[in-house]
Amino acid sequence: MIELSLFNVLDLLGTTAFAISGALAAMNRRLDLFGIFIIAFVTAIGGGTVRDTLIGNTPVTWMENIIYIYLIGVVTIFSIIFRRKLNYLKKSLFLFDTIGLGIFTITGVEIGIQNDLNPIISITLGAMTGTFGGVIRDILCNEIPVIFRKEIYATACLIGGLAFIILHEVGVPQDLIYLVTSLTVIIIRLIVVKYHISLPSFYLSSEKTPL
Amino acid sequence: MIELSLFNVLDLLGTTAFAISGALAAMNRRLDLFGIFIIAFVTAIGGGTVRDTLIGNTPVTWMENIIYIYLIGVVTIFSIIFRRKLNYLKKSLFLFDTIGLGIFTITGVEIGIQNDLNPIISITLGAMTGTFGGVIRDILCNEIPVIFRKEIYATACLIGGLAFIILHEVGVPQDLIYLVTSLTVIIIRLIVVKYHISLPSFYLSSEKTPL
Amino acid sequence: MIELSLFNVLDLLGTTAFAISGALAAMNRRLDLFGIFIIAFVTAIGGGTVRDTLIGNTPVTWMENIIYIYLIGVVTIFSIIFRRKLNYLKKSLFLFDTIGLGIFTITGVEIGIQNDLNPIISITLGAMTGTFGGVIRDILCNEIPVIFRKEIYATACLIGGLAFIILHEVGVPQDLIYLVTSLTVIIIRLIVVKYHISLPSFYLSSEKTPL
Repeated sequence: MIELSLFNVLDLLGTTAFAISGALAAMNRRLDLFGIFIIAFVTAIGGGTVRDTLIGNTPVTWMENIIYIYLIGVVTIFSIIFRRKLNYLKKSLFLFDTIGLGIFTITGVEIGIQNDLNPIISITLGAMTGTFGGVIRDILCNEIPVIFRKEIYATACLIGGLAFIILHEVGVPQDLIYLVTSLTVIIIRLIVVKYHISLPSFYLSSEKTPL
Repeated sequence: MIELSLFNVLDLLGTTAFAISGALAAMNRRLDLFGIFIIAFVTAIGGGTVRDTLIGNTPVTWMENIIYIYLIGVVTIFSIIFRRKLNYLKKSLFLFDTIGLGIFTITGVEIGIQNDLNPIISITLGAMTGTFGGVIRDILCNEIPVIFRKEIYATACLIGGLAFIILHEVGVPQDLIYLVTSLTVIIIRLIVVKYHISLPSFYLSSEKTPL
Repeated sequence: MIELSLFNVLDLLGTTAFAISGALAAMNRRLDLFGIFIIAFVTAIGGGTVRDTLIGNTPVTWMENIIYIYLIGVVTIFSIIFRRKLNYLKKSLFLFDTIGLGIFTITGVEIGIQNDLNPIISITLGAMTGTFGGVIRDILCNEIPVIFRKEIYATACLIGGLAFIILHEVGVPQDLIYLVTSLTVIIIRLIVVKYHISLPSFYLSSEKTPL
């Protein structure tokens, strides 16, 4: 079993949040029972799987501990039963996606630091861990990946990751860092979407260049 | 060279079936000679490559043995020459996809068991090994991935994987398990498509929730 | 730091070329600042990451050396500042994509040889390393992947890879091989596109077969 440190609790919370977002997206696409489970599963484990594969931590995490599959199975059934309540909240998919993003970004940065990677590389790894599950969910459900919409998305991860590195250097206790920086990512994204804040884009011209 | 155990014969048969399905899909998209080979190659080795990468079996299988590239090359040429006969069969793409699915699901479960993974995780690994090549083929050829259509697809893998684990626990000889469970997956899929059987889906509402 | 052998200089040149092609594609899609960086990053490191993951060289190269992230960051800013000049050249995206393709194909073949892979497998690995970044760029930017258009693309990689193996067997000095074979790939692609040369394709029929 997983030891119940704050790190592991956050990891399971992030898994739960992304699994709900995946199940909601799949129900929107009218997939059947197993289709819903598959999208929930891939969304929940996608970021961590890419992270583990790139650093060479194999077999990847969800293969070493059965709790992930059970948790995602329970969350899928829960999401199907309470689908109208979740829908009633209207912004649930956005909310759970954001919670998963915040938590997984920080666990990704932590794993990078633990593997003695350069801090900037660890932040990049955190951003990948946080965003990859959602990108895969959106590609499979034929949505424009959330990462490419007008909202600031990856930027929230980068700021959270930077905060992690700074607090880590300063010597703040680990558990406090986890909470503060996860919340940083989540709050930035909530504010940014609420107030329609966006970064500048740079157009080449009104026409596309020939490839 | 590969030792010619039943496991390896099945592996090469599955590779052949998926390569044919890839070559047919590529010819449908009017790709040129190398485009056809590339889609055949990716379809045939996709599932096994993901399986090997996730469990850390690197270099992946097709890199350790030249027979896979040669086999896929020969199958591609064969598919091009006999394309009208294959087309005449009308349902060939579906049929070869199903054969590949059945065989690769079972080899994936077997590799999971060999690596001491939990039985449920091994079934998941088997389902991934069986379906991933076809999903990649469909994404690259711009088709709706077969796994998300109304037919029961992943479900057939899960039932076959479950049968594998049960027969394995009961102590049935390996070779018999391979044959019975591969055929289980194939037959379930054939029956399901023939009789238009499908699992229930759960709609959120008539409109999409805002992401 | 990276030792500045010709191999490493070429690797950084290929990274630069692909990062520019990614940044141009992202500006075409009107992505914001970080969106541009992300596409530039993924295009530049995609091929090498897949290569490293498949042969088990983890953590992957860009994680072991911070120079890649810095270089891609600088190239992104450079591409944004000089976007009108790059656009003025009209064919810049095509040109930088081709340079990256030529160089990365050859570094992929070399890494295969260094890992004692079969020469034909090394050529396949080289073709994957050369093409994968561009395929990912095109999928993320919602373009038809360059590899599937009418032009000869993967074929150029295969010819360059074959030339590499032959010159290697004959005993030509490494640095000379790198230059000659990278240029071979680049020149073949330039000529092929200029003169609209294409390989034959094989149609199944005027209608698509049912999948």
